[in-house]
Amino acid sequence: MALYVQKYGGTSVGSVERIQAVAKKVKGFKDQGHDIVVTVSAMSGETNRLIALAKEMQVVPSPREMDVLLATGEQVTIALMSMALEHQGLKVRSYTGSQVRILTDNSHGKARIEDIDVQKIRDDLDAGIVVVVAGFQGADQHDNITTLGRGGSDTTGVALAAALKADECQIYTDVDGVYTTDPRVVEGAQRLSEITFEEMLEMASLGSKILQIRAVEFAGKYKVPLRVLSSFKEGPGTLITIEDDDKVEKPVISGIAFNRDEAKLTIMGVPDIPGVASKILGPISQANIEVDMILQNVAEDQSTDFTFTVHRNDFDQAKAVLQRTAKQLQAREVKGDNKIAKVSIVGVGMRSHAGVATKMFDALASENINIQMISTSEIKVSVVLAEKYLELAVRSLHSAFELGRNDTISE
Amino acid sequence: MALYVQKYGGTSVGSVERIQAVAKKVKGFKDQGHDIVVTVSAMSGETNRLIALAKEMQVVPSPREMDVLLATGEQVTIALMSMALEHQGLKVRSYTGSQVRILTDNSHGKARIEDIDVQKIRDDLDAGIVVVVAGFQGADQHDNITTLGRGGSDTTGVALAAALKADECQIYTDVDGVYTTDPRVVEGAQRLSEITFEEMLEMASLGSKILQIRAVEFAGKYKVPLRVLSSFKEGPGTLITIEDDDKVEKPVISGIAFNRDEAKLTIMGVPDIPGVASKILGPISQANIEVDMILQNVAEDQSTDFTFTVHRNDFDQAKAVLQRTAKQLQAREVKGDNKIAKVSIVGVGMRSHAGVATKMFDALASENINIQMISTSEIKVSVVLAEKYLELAVRSLHSAFELGRNDTISE
Repeated sequence: MALYVQKYGGTSVGSVERIQAVAKKVKGFKDQGHDIVVTVSAMSGETNRLIALAKEMQVVPSPREMDVLLATGEQVTIALMSMALEHQGLKVRSYTGSQVRILTDNSHGKARIEDIDVQKIRDDLDAGIVVVVAGFQGADQHDNITTLGRGGSDTTGVALAAALKADECQIYTDVDGVYTTDPRVVEGAQRLSEITFEEMLEMASLGSKILQIRAVEFAGKYKVPLRVLSSFKEGPGTLITIEDDDKVEKPVISGIAFNRDEAKLTIMGVPDIPGVASKILGPISQANIEVDMILQNVAEDQSTDFTFTVHRNDFDQAKAVLQRTAKQLQAREVKGDNKIAKVSIVGVGMRSHAGVATKMFDALASENINIQMISTSEIKVSVVLAEKYLELAVRSLHSAFELGRNDTISE
Repeated sequence: MALYVQKYGGTSVGSVERIQAVAKKVKGFKDQGHDIVVTVSAMSGETNRLIALAKEMQVVPSPREMDVLLATGEQVTIALMSMALEHQGLKVRSYTGSQVRILTDNSHGKARIEDIDVQKIRDDLDAGIVVVVAGFQGADQHDNITTLGRGGSDTTGVALAAALKADECQIYTDVDGVYTTDPRVVEGAQRLSEITFEEMLEMASLGSKILQIRAVEFAGKYKVPLRVLSSFKEGPGTLITIEDDDKVEKPVISGIAFNRDEAKLTIMGVPDIPGVASKILGPISQANIEVDMILQNVAEDQSTDFTFTVHRNDFDQAKAVLQRTAKQLQAREVKGDNKIAKVSIVGVGMRSHAGVATKMFDALASENINIQMISTSEIKVSVVLAEKYLELAVRSLHSAFELGRNDTISE
């Protein structure tokens, strides 16, 4: 008998039939004798519908009132879910974020959870009641309704699990776990039975958008065992764990992440003097453009080239900003390329294994793929390459690191 | 400078454009220096949409969770209305029933307001803020969300006005006031500038469904001046007042109400013994059928006839119940007629004027309309007649009591 906090996202509760299917699933867990806290998102599409209504009222809708509006999405789901669970013969009680209460700061639209009062939930669980909590929302100290921002329901699930010291926080989604890479690109991609929080963070920020980064960070911080599973398909999913130093064998690489939405900008022939980097990147960040990788060439003749990557959507704007900077700095030229992609190998095992990067570069070289930029962290090596090589690169790396079902027996 | 509580119903806030129109209206009042508290219903259609979803989950949805669900309807409206008001340049704050807080008992779906904490609202008004409160909802002492039942937004408006000692509670609706009778039936029907609470109660319960009866009762009890106005058309509407004994001249009759949804049942030849009425009506009320008018004939030969009216929708079921009763009582026959209607004259003035009923019967007789049943109260006389005579009866009474624009100069 365990206590599980189960989070069901917008797709999992996207229709009457899906809510009923979730209720049956919960009934199964309850029948096995487990205590269950369910947290849910708004039905898929609902949040966008509400945002559209708000924008008709005000060009920039009031953040406080936007939260009042958006919070109704999850409130509808908790009520419908509770009815479906009652229909399964279970005792149920629903709570909004404010009712629980999930205390947050007052940053409307991106509030952070400060405290959760779990007394009511504990009492309900002790009475055999399934508790249904609205995800994504809370209330500040003055009882103003707040929301945690998109994907905040994952954070609600993890925070509830932490506060309740649950045995597991289970995030039900439309994929059945975390894969070594995108199965649409590599046919032999495998579901990982386990992955560490740090690896998951690198995978998530690199475009494997299964879990919200904040939820993973939160789970890591409070050591909440987190499991990603499918709402639609039976299976153990992927357990996201605290790194276990006692484990004898760790896979060197857990997965290959990639991201197509990249663009590259180069300013050529800038004077190689202190402060030039901030002169170049300052105006970019002032324009609210996020920069990812940065590369400065070794200087020649007191002048250097400076390259960075941005999200592809920001490419045109960043280029315009950079051209103004180039004039001021009397730089030679601005070049841009929005047909690039980023591929990363991720794994805690690389800490203790030398030569991982070399193996990566060799694999790419053997396919004649040119590497344009390189960036490394403790558990990740990322390279930028021409977009047209993306699939080839991912497949060759997946195979080189023996991640596939048919590659070897190494796992 | 006055304090107005303004209630806007579902049709008045039924679309983005209508909410914007209400916001402009409120801006006008604010510009005149008035303090404004707005209370709103769910956008028209929303409550029915939510109920349909609930019924897909559970045949009889949990009353607690139904309230959690339905309360989202008004929550959406307060957020959108607040945004529209901010767009007009006003300072605004929205509150759900729970946030105010509007304390109710725990009868989910038909909760009664026990107390309203107006401190936050007063502070906001003092700071020049327009306050927007979700109608129809509250919270019980354990912070469970409750709803007041259909039409409860009127009650919220009146209760807020009473608690805030507002100068007026203004109910904005899709009609521009209370009329002497339905203008669709009598062309010359006139808007009443004033009507008493008692008259309004009789008019409302007789089918002039402008205001919820509970709200009118509440307003009468707490002596809240209540005004019915149109959201779409300028005008002073109708003020519903406490009866003023000092007023020298009162109109004898304020209006003609009528109701088509009536049906009549007669059980003939029942023994004229004590307790026979309850033997007949007991099974009817056990079947949850409401009985309106009741008539027992003068007995002949120890046997009598017993007639009553029910809502037309209940006619078939009531007839079946009555036929079973007739067998038990060895009654002679059951007769029914679902093509009847009820017409009533209403007015506090009839208390002090004799001959009002006679004048009514004369007017009907002069049109050769047969009266089937009669029922009277202190300020009302109702008659049942064949439905086909309804319009003729209403017009002749409207004219006999000189209620029309062109009838006389008596008003």
